[in-house]
Amino acid sequence: MTPVSSWKSFGGELAVFDHDSAVCGGSMRFAVYTPPQAKNGPVPVLWYLSGLTCNWSNVMEKSGLQRAASAHGVMIIAPDTSPRGTDVPDDEAYDLGQGAGFYLTATLPPWSQHFRMDEYITSELPALISKRFPADMERQGIFGHSMGGHGALTLHLKHPELYHSVSAFSPIVAPSQVPWGQKAFTAYLGEDRNAWAQYDACALVRACPSKAHILIDQGEADQFLAQELKPELFEQACANAGQTLTLRRQPGYDHSYYFISSFMDDHIAHHADQLG
Amino acid sequence: MTPVSSWKSFGGELAVFDHDSAVCGGSMRFAVYTPPQAKNGPVPVLWYLSGLTCNWSNVMEKSGLQRAASAHGVMIIAPDTSPRGTDVPDDEAYDLGQGAGFYLTATLPPWSQHFRMDEYITSELPALISKRFPADMERQGIFGHSMGGHGALTLHLKHPELYHSVSAFSPIVAPSQVPWGQKAFTAYLGEDRNAWAQYDACALVRACPSKAHILIDQGEADQFLAQELKPELFEQACANAGQTLTLRRQPGYDHSYYFISSFMDDHIAHHADQLG
Repeated sequence: MTPVSSWKSFGGELAVFDHDSAVCGGSMRFAVYTPPQAKNGPVPVLWYLSGLTCNWSNVMEKSGLQRAASAHGVMIIAPDTSPRGTDVPDDEAYDLGQGAGFYLTATLPPWSQHFRMDEYITSELPALISKRFPADMERQGIFGHSMGGHGALTLHLKHPELYHSVSAFSPIVAPSQVPWGQKAFTAYLGEDRNAWAQYDACALVRACPSKAHILIDQGEADQFLAQELKPELFEQACANAGQTLTLRRQPGYDHSYYFISSFMDDHIAHHADQLG
Repeated sequence: MTPVSSWKSFGGELAVFDHDSAVCGGSMRFAVYTPPQAKNGPVPVLWYLSGLTCNWSNVMEKSGLQRAASAHGVMIIAPDTSPRGTDVPDDEAYDLGQGAGFYLTATLPPWSQHFRMDEYITSELPALISKRFPADMERQGIFGHSMGGHGALTLHLKHPELYHSVSAFSPIVAPSQVPWGQKAFTAYLGEDRNAWAQYDACALVRACPSKAHILIDQGEADQFLAQELKPELFEQACANAGQTLTLRRQPGYDHSYYFISSFMDDHIAHHADQLG
């Protein structure tokens, strides 16, 4: 684990590291915000998964989440959204390849060698975090934005024993039914839609709802709302499955970090409350 | 005034505009955050002046100030740090020319035609704001970072009747005595140091302290502290002049927006309190 940079922030520390990932087959970069309370012992851990094209810096620079993380004493981990580098396959489009890992294990070449973001997030990186940071791994939560909201919902539903709290900003909830997801899943997983269901929040919640209370904020002026996000599909799936969901439609807000930052306090409070 | 973009943020609106500036002789861009309270009538106005290289976006994207501005019902204006464009003179260095206006009226060529940021900030832009926004121009405050802290302190001390509250993050307080200021003042104003004093916060406060309570936060791990910032010079000048100053030295903090955001709430509260 190689330190890249660090800053004091709201009494805690934001630090960025590179490390060699066996799962992704190369160097990966991530950021950790450690709140001041961690001086006194392990603190709950909240995983923030970013959206298409993003890396650790978007949320750490633009969401203002350090303020609430410091107030509630929660550690925040911000991984990258895919493997990156000249050895890693890529695509010219912003929504496939580097920056667009979709938090899954790709089974098709050329992606299958590096693109295993679900195992990276749920297993390899937590092992490193638990060894090197004052993190209480019994109290983990997960949240994210857009593609990262998809990641948070699906990883929570598949690993409720790992993530005891979950929330999302403008998540992709039904990737099998929208262009972003269909394009990525076809490239990473192939044409067989049975393989897609394990990475589709609507399908997962129908099959196996969790005991958590899911919080979602969605801007009503989001430019991706009608074609890519379709929160009503998840709302219906949760209702059918008996999954507790609070879906808040926020008038006038778009898909940007100006939207995310406006409701970040509520999300951190939601996780801090559920993680105790 | 041409709208460039806008976002809903913390119940208010962040909007970016271009306009033709007669003072600066070209197009200038600025941002305005209008808090939700402005629906009910004019609100206090707080001017944020940015540091070297920055434009409106740094503070609006990275400081998280919309949250406190919304809570306190304060409008925030973020002007650019200089005229810009292909018709505007520039220098290869980051600390002279475009992005480095130093909030003064340049008297030497090639700068004197466009570089008149003090008149732009104190006169031309406020006239536009008062005409087009629900701004209570009787309740204006000013703050800024680094070169923008210099701008805030000097413009307040020269125009206490305009700016009833003032604060700064890691300001340049004695430009006549440090490399950044000496380089810029020599280029913009010439070798005569008498012309520099009107743009030097230490000199101004010695000549004419204000009735305001000045708040300054300064990171002790700031990489520019010893050579460019020297807050002890301003502390001494204020003590000698009877100027009320709270200078807070913050251990471990650097010059970045991670520092600024950590103390932004205190600054907005300081201004809201003083502006009533």
